[in-house]
Amino acid sequence: MDRTQLARLLADIAAGAVTPEEGLQRLRFWPYEDLGFARIDHHRHLRQGVPEVIYCQGKTVAQVRAIGERILREHGELLATRVAPEAAQALLELAPQAEYNPVARTVVVRRQPRPSTQGVVLVISAGTADLPVAEEAAVTARAFGSTVQTVYDVGVAGLHRLLDVREQLLAARVIVVVAGMEGALASVVGGMVAQPVIAVPTSVGYGAHFSGLAPLLTMLNSCAAGVAVVNIDNGFGAGYLAHKINLIGER
Amino acid sequence: MDRTQLARLLADIAAGAVTPEEGLQRLRFWPYEDLGFARIDHHRHLRQGVPEVIYCQGKTVAQVRAIGERILREHGELLATRVAPEAAQALLELAPQAEYNPVARTVVVRRQPRPSTQGVVLVISAGTADLPVAEEAAVTARAFGSTVQTVYDVGVAGLHRLLDVREQLLAARVIVVVAGMEGALASVVGGMVAQPVIAVPTSVGYGAHFSGLAPLLTMLNSCAAGVAVVNIDNGFGAGYLAHKINLIGER
Amino acid sequence: MDRTQLARLLADIAAGAVTPEEGLQRLRFWPYEDLGFARIDHHRHLRQGVPEVIYCQGKTVAQVRAIGERILREHGELLATRVAPEAAQALLELAPQAEYNPVARTVVVRRQPRPSTQGVVLVISAGTADLPVAEEAAVTARAFGSTVQTVYDVGVAGLHRLLDVREQLLAARVIVVVAGMEGALASVVGGMVAQPVIAVPTSVGYGAHFSGLAPLLTMLNSCAAGVAVVNIDNGFGAGYLAHKINLIGER
Amino acid sequence: MDRTQLARLLADIAAGAVTPEEGLQRLRFWPYEDLGFARIDHHRHLRQGVPEVIYCQGKTVAQVRAIGERILREHGELLATRVAPEAAQALLELAPQAEYNPVARTVVVRRQPRPSTQGVVLVISAGTADLPVAEEAAVTARAFGSTVQTVYDVGVAGLHRLLDVREQLLAARVIVVVAGMEGALASVVGGMVAQPVIAVPTSVGYGAHFSGLAPLLTMLNSCAAGVAVVNIDNGFGAGYLAHKINLIGER
Amino acid sequence: MDRTQLARLLADIAAGAVTPEEGLQRLRFWPYEDLGFARIDHHRHLRQGVPEVIYCQGKTVAQVRAIGERILREHGELLATRVAPEAAQALLELAPQAEYNPVARTVVVRRQPRPSTQGVVLVISAGTADLPVAEEAAVTARAFGSTVQTVYDVGVAGLHRLLDVREQLLAARVIVVVAGMEGALASVVGGMVAQPVIAVPTSVGYGAHFSGLAPLLTMLNSCAAGVAVVNIDNGFGAGYLAHKINLIGER
Amino acid sequence: MDRTQLARLLADIAAGAVTPEEGLQRLRFWPYEDLGFARIDHHRHLRQGVPEVIYCQGKTVAQVRAIGERILREHGELLATRVAPEAAQALLELAPQAEYNPVARTVVVRRQPRPSTQGVVLVISAGTADLPVAEEAAVTARAFGSTVQTVYDVGVAGLHRLLDVREQLLAARVIVVVAGMEGALASVVGGMVAQPVIAVPTSVGYGAHFSGLAPLLTMLNSCAAGVAVVNIDNGFGAGYLAHKINLIGER
Amino acid sequence: MDRTQLARLLADIAAGAVTPEEGLQRLRFWPYEDLGFARIDHHRHLRQGVPEVIYCQGKTVAQVRAIGERILREHGELLATRVAPEAAQALLELAPQAEYNPVARTVVVRRQPRPSTQGVVLVISAGTADLPVAEEAAVTARAFGSTVQTVYDVGVAGLHRLLDVREQLLAARVIVVVAGMEGALASVVGGMVAQPVIAVPTSVGYGAHFSGLAPLLTMLNSCAAGVAVVNIDNGFGAGYLAHKINLIGER
Amino acid sequence: MDRTQLARLLADIAAGAVTPEEGLQRLRFWPYEDLGFARIDHHRHLRQGVPEVIYCQGKTVAQVRAIGERILREHGELLATRVAPEAAQALLELAPQAEYNPVARTVVVRRQPRPSTQGVVLVISAGTADLPVAEEAAVTARAFGSTVQTVYDVGVAGLHRLLDVREQLLAARVIVVVAGMEGALASVVGGMVAQPVIAVPTSVGYGAHFSGLAPLLTMLNSCAAGVAVVNIDNGFGAGYLAHKINLIGER
Repeated sequence: MDRTQLARLLADIAAGAVTPEEGLQRLRFWPYEDLGFARIDHHRHLRQGVPEVIYCQGKTVAQVRAIGERILREHGELLATRVAPEAAQALLELAPQAEYNPVARTVVVRRQPRPSTQGVVLVISAGTADLPVAEEAAVTARAFGSTVQTVYDVGVAGLHRLLDVREQLLAARVIVVVAGMEGALASVVGGMVAQPVIAVPTSVGYGAHFSGLAPLLTMLNSCAAGVAVVNIDNGFGAGYLAHKINLIGER
Repeated sequence: MDRTQLARLLADIAAGAVTPEEGLQRLRFWPYEDLGFARIDHHRHLRQGVPEVIYCQGKTVAQVRAIGERILREHGELLATRVAPEAAQALLELAPQAEYNPVARTVVVRRQPRPSTQGVVLVISAGTADLPVAEEAAVTARAFGSTVQTVYDVGVAGLHRLLDVREQLLAARVIVVVAGMEGALASVVGGMVAQPVIAVPTSVGYGAHFSGLAPLLTMLNSCAAGVAVVNIDNGFGAGYLAHKINLIGER
Repeated sequence: MDRTQLARLLADIAAGAVTPEEGLQRLRFWPYEDLGFARIDHHRHLRQGVPEVIYCQGKTVAQVRAIGERILREHGELLATRVAPEAAQALLELAPQAEYNPVARTVVVRRQPRPSTQGVVLVISAGTADLPVAEEAAVTARAFGSTVQTVYDVGVAGLHRLLDVREQLLAARVIVVVAGMEGALASVVGGMVAQPVIAVPTSVGYGAHFSGLAPLLTMLNSCAAGVAVVNIDNGFGAGYLAHKINLIGER
Repeated sequence: MDRTQLARLLADIAAGAVTPEEGLQRLRFWPYEDLGFARIDHHRHLRQGVPEVIYCQGKTVAQVRAIGERILREHGELLATRVAPEAAQALLELAPQAEYNPVARTVVVRRQPRPSTQGVVLVISAGTADLPVAEEAAVTARAFGSTVQTVYDVGVAGLHRLLDVREQLLAARVIVVVAGMEGALASVVGGMVAQPVIAVPTSVGYGAHFSGLAPLLTMLNSCAAGVAVVNIDNGFGAGYLAHKINLIGER
Repeated sequence: MDRTQLARLLADIAAGAVTPEEGLQRLRFWPYEDLGFARIDHHRHLRQGVPEVIYCQGKTVAQVRAIGERILREHGELLATRVAPEAAQALLELAPQAEYNPVARTVVVRRQPRPSTQGVVLVISAGTADLPVAEEAAVTARAFGSTVQTVYDVGVAGLHRLLDVREQLLAARVIVVVAGMEGALASVVGGMVAQPVIAVPTSVGYGAHFSGLAPLLTMLNSCAAGVAVVNIDNGFGAGYLAHKINLIGER
Repeated sequence: MDRTQLARLLADIAAGAVTPEEGLQRLRFWPYEDLGFARIDHHRHLRQGVPEVIYCQGKTVAQVRAIGERILREHGELLATRVAPEAAQALLELAPQAEYNPVARTVVVRRQPRPSTQGVVLVISAGTADLPVAEEAAVTARAFGSTVQTVYDVGVAGLHRLLDVREQLLAARVIVVVAGMEGALASVVGGMVAQPVIAVPTSVGYGAHFSGLAPLLTMLNSCAAGVAVVNIDNGFGAGYLAHKINLIGER
Repeated sequence: MDRTQLARLLADIAAGAVTPEEGLQRLRFWPYEDLGFARIDHHRHLRQGVPEVIYCQGKTVAQVRAIGERILREHGELLATRVAPEAAQALLELAPQAEYNPVARTVVVRRQPRPSTQGVVLVISAGTADLPVAEEAAVTARAFGSTVQTVYDVGVAGLHRLLDVREQLLAARVIVVVAGMEGALASVVGGMVAQPVIAVPTSVGYGAHFSGLAPLLTMLNSCAAGVAVVNIDNGFGAGYLAHKINLIGER
Repeated sequence: MDRTQLARLLADIAAGAVTPEEGLQRLRFWPYEDLGFARIDHHRHLRQGVPEVIYCQGKTVAQVRAIGERILREHGELLATRVAPEAAQALLELAPQAEYNPVARTVVVRRQPRPSTQGVVLVISAGTADLPVAEEAAVTARAFGSTVQTVYDVGVAGLHRLLDVREQLLAARVIVVVAGMEGALASVVGGMVAQPVIAVPTSVGYGAHFSGLAPLLTMLNSCAAGVAVVNIDNGFGAGYLAHKINLIGER
């Protein structure tokens, strides 16, 4: 049941074709199903306006396939993240039109091309090794309908690269900064622009990096205001939030 | 030099009244002054579209007064945060019309009433003790021009309180969740709404709370997508970012 | 030597059939044996009222088999946890009637069906990936004789799922909450019910989750009173304690 | 509205004296009031069966008095924890019959003597310095109606002291173990008894104690099953949960 | 050059057979050799009175063999710790009389049987999984000449096992306590005896054990005086120090 | 009841003047008394061979006085550590012959001069600021009867100072190394001597010192074998253990 | 474009052969290229005076080859660090004259022999296992043109070894100290010399070493002034900085 | 005994006016004195070429005065750091010509004006609150003879300020970067220059700053090579090392 179906139901109630009690009843039976090991929340669609997402890490190929099948039957579209090659293969067999991005480790299935937003989500990353997280953010925002641009490998150790893309920064509606190592890029970008910045620390580094703790703390302590942070390596969360913010400007 | 003055300068260049070289020259002398102990960045106004802010923690009353005086002379308005009572007194002497909020520990000086936004920033907090941080967020967003609503003391241990304000949650454009203790409120709110959620962990707690580490980790690991986090007790950062996001919908 | 045998001994002493000194002597020879690498504590049975348990992690298949054999010879029943498939195979060869649960990674051997309790232990988990820990808790409580119900995949990001099972929550005598990610489920359940809640953080998560530290801190700081916590991934401990609490109501 | 009143309402509904709709309506208006800075949850009484509690740490004397006044007007009884002497004075002025325990830092106000439980909550502590936390646990369990016994200063460095109270340990229905330093008492007690053990680490220690982290980890890793842990110094939480478990045996 | 050779040299100097200058010269050429990747300190023998030890972790089989060969040629005896099976094989080929202990992961080569001490080093461990560390301690102390006894699997959850070996505890000259999980055994033993106790935390555990941090903190905070701690899993260090302390009583 | 009294009792049993049962009975009534807030363990004297110690931190002056009075009445001697000036004053009033050391923060009361040991406990410290901990160790070992020497301010940054006291190092029976900052002194001393070394990290430092964590980790990871560690700032524990080790050589 | 080419350009501008605007234009087109996954910063050469470096960890063999090819085409020389054997093979195929150091895990390609510096960079390491990091530092400093000496396996547990190389220490211009375990070597060397010391903690150790945290903290808290620290295992960074410091004396 | 006196002694030996044995003898009596609580190392002067420094934190005014008096008598000059106002007063009484800098918390006493270096040490800081640490670095380097320049309040949130001082950056011989908050300034400066950069994290910040841990980790993980780090707030160490590096270029 998507937004259109819900609107029709409410209209029917207004027109007297459906009693309010019936309406309540239909809505009350929340449309999730029980697979035994996972309750797929078809209704989240309604409450949050986004397609169903499968987070594949820690799930077997069989579990991914079973959940994917159910979602596709119900919605016809999905976004899968942290997809291992074998799980991607399973999803591609379910939906041959699926787009698999091995760098981002994502699979996207769409029923029809989504209209893209006017506003731009800009994903910017510091180093080559941060690409999987940055791409996950980009694929996610695109999957939900945002126009996305990407600028990669513009770390603060070579400041001129960053200054070169200043105009692209200023033209975006919301910016996702992905950085490992010391994560200083978020502060520098945050100081250059007036838009919201979503910072994603990555686990790329070694030693006193402590698997992402270093850039996480850097970003939380950013001296530039207007920067908020998501979990280490959480490209999906950043792309999803960036899309939500971007949507505000579309209305 | 604000946006209007800059636009006029660029128009003059386009019209030939000012040579590009002269224009470059004027812009090059960035309008900050050197007080010896702090370079006030009047220009940030231009780049980021916000008034000047004084973060008072760790500054002496004399330093706060000196910085405040310079800013008021140049801009006529300011926002001071983490203001101790003595520093607040000093600012009130400089600008009798200043509004001092002792709970939020803020002082706001405005030249003229700002028009408020149509979109609403909703600040919601879990416990009574989180109020100073929540109020700092609310005062900040209001100081920059956002319409702000607040809902306090709706922690997850009494879920019905939260369900009671569901409509207010759904009506806001962006939501700031302030919570100490275990910080679970951010996840619950994040699961109820489709808007961007900015989570602020607070240092309210004891024992294995580790001065805010517990809710910080909770919020970073939120199972609800669309939640981003700022530093522990950083009400200012949350209010400022919420305002930026809110502005997107005003354009 | 179980409780019945002990009672008979004490009666014999009271009746003069056994001198107190002899009684002391018999009890003094605690009935454990020395396998060289592990002292099996058959006597714990007596002091704590539970069958012998083998924690298999870090033990070789040969060690598991040797300990299992000795326990089965002495007691005829056992509970093995964290059983790898090979070790499970070894135990199944010793006792073909053994029940192996590959998700919970447990093997249970019983001499005869245990009567179940009237009171219910409810095990509730937040996500699909928390299943192994939740099942370990459920199998454990059942192995000791509790009636157990399970409700899985009701995380706080979809609050309606949780509200749907409210009656089941209220009907249980003690509740085990298993959650990874940010672990907020324990607080929400703790705020909904008046029964004791045992919270089990799991290592399911990534980044700033720090292998379970995040939900552990969340649960320790729960704003809902009446919640106590066991070690990360310690399904056994939770199920065992839940059974002990459940037993109080059976007397 | 307490349990008796609720039962009467439901009976009235069953008898037809009140329509279900009216009943719903009455219950729907959750009886909490808004003091501006804190929503007192009078209804928790109903859902959880316990009187209202004020956690005084971080609240001003004026806030404590205001909340206390409202609770006493509505319920006639309360439990206040972490009460500073000045706040205790304020509560004693509101209710001269209040019992103030300066070691436990608690104030208890009762309308009438509560009948005590048959089952015993035993609070046992390792060192003299752990007394405030142990007493907070004891006062709390007593305030809710449990019969409480206490055994103090029986740390594991003098094992014979602990062995001396073995019978008291075995006679209790639930045991609260309070320990700072290395917190080993919880493991030793957990190994001696078959009852549920609630362990409370305290912040008593220095150096590598890290304000309670050491005994917290000790207790979470206890080699004795059947031990669950609450937050560092959380005597209230332990006493409250112990009472809940104790109640199970009263029914 | 061992102690005997040194004594003879000093006697020669006293007797005028060697000038002091020559003596100085001989001693100055510290007898270590340079293998390029490791300076074997043959002289430590002289300063510290112990044979040469190879810590094999992180060394290749070839490096272990090369170092072992040089040591055996010079001293005829060695102790190797953390020896992987392949490296053990290499050492056995060098010295067929070598004793390989696969549980302790040690190889010992002796020129002749060492006379054992009258005093006893007692190694006591809490659980089966702590055996490798406990055995490393025992093998080490024995290799240097101490009489060693071992008592395994006497964790505090079954206190009677520990009480049963009380006499053995009291008869030893120095006690090494090896424990993973929560490490409480060190405190309990430390409270039972008047001898020096060396505590060794092990990495055996999971979750909030943090690879040995939990028992390390427990042992450092022991409420029993007279307990000192070595690094996590450092059986060698404990056995070596125990031997040194034991030797004091032999003189 | 001290060792002499116990010996007489056992002789009486052997001589038939006392039956074994009576003897058991007398020993069974462990001679500790209950002050309500602290069980003074007079019997520890017997089991561990040391006088009673009061750890004063966190105790009120009144509590220190009450415990001190009881101990002096029973034993006539005591050692108090972490004594604040006011508490010291109270103890001096109880026993005018008491020795108060304000640097070590100790008070010692002796009935008669103890014979000193032949073996020497050497306490060596790295910096001036480590003195309170080093002195606590020295006073403690002396209070129990050891001959103690001290060498202060010989940090590794001036290696020649350390080399100058090499002979003193070699002449001691056991060495206590007290060091803050990075704590390297323990490794250097450990590499120079063959005796047991007890290392005490202190909380002297700042920044990444983390109140003693830095030297604690340094000492636990010492590349010199034969070093064991006690808690941060635990001068008492080090002095006490050093005395125990020293005693081994006296027998 | 290297320093020579830049000098020629500036001379041409001074001579009028190139207009300043053209000069600006040429410099403005920063000479980096976009490979899609990594922007190679050929210009860093110009700003920092060093050849291009490939940090190979986390890069595929194909990525290493592609980046290496581009750099060699442009510059004819490179330094690759953290090179796995397969990646080394790929680089050797590109440039047969490349020098591969499997211990240091480095590949160096030079167009022509670099003149070496008069000043010496001395790399000193504590243990055999620290060699890879020490060699990485040595290879790096040499690759940029410094004269490098190395002294390995001189840990503080055998102080005489260190004293033996004192003259070499005093003769160097800058010293790199590489140490795992407790990392005390940096403090001892820092106290012996007047030159700058760069300390590199390594991840060599176990238990409370926490993968290099222990020596990192040791080195940051060094009681010897004049010591600065780089990241755990960061041999490259240390060698590079040592070279920079060494160059100061060449001018 | 300074370098001049030493040279004269060696010349006398070469000329036969002093025998080598006498020379050895004189040097052997290291010229430090024992004040009981601190060995002042007058000889460090000789080995390290710098005047004596008093680190005043944790020392009483009397101790500072006593140490200061002894140093001034011997050397006539000193540098005191972390000087509280009362201790500064005491030193000013000893040496009226002393320079007290209350921001840097330093006192400097010089016998005669030192000639300054040609090379420049540039101290650059991010925020106003970092001034005490930055000034401590500047005063220290100047006290040893370096020419020092300072640029304050140029944090990365206002990048243009930093770009404005680029020439000053390029002209220095060595750069000290002082930054609290997230500490990103070190990476940005490190990427702009080819000189050695010494980074000093400060404890200025709050929440997830953890008293300087955040910028410490940032700086250790800097993506710009050529950056080394000293302890949190260690302005002295940075200034001292910067001076040492600067001196290399003076020879």
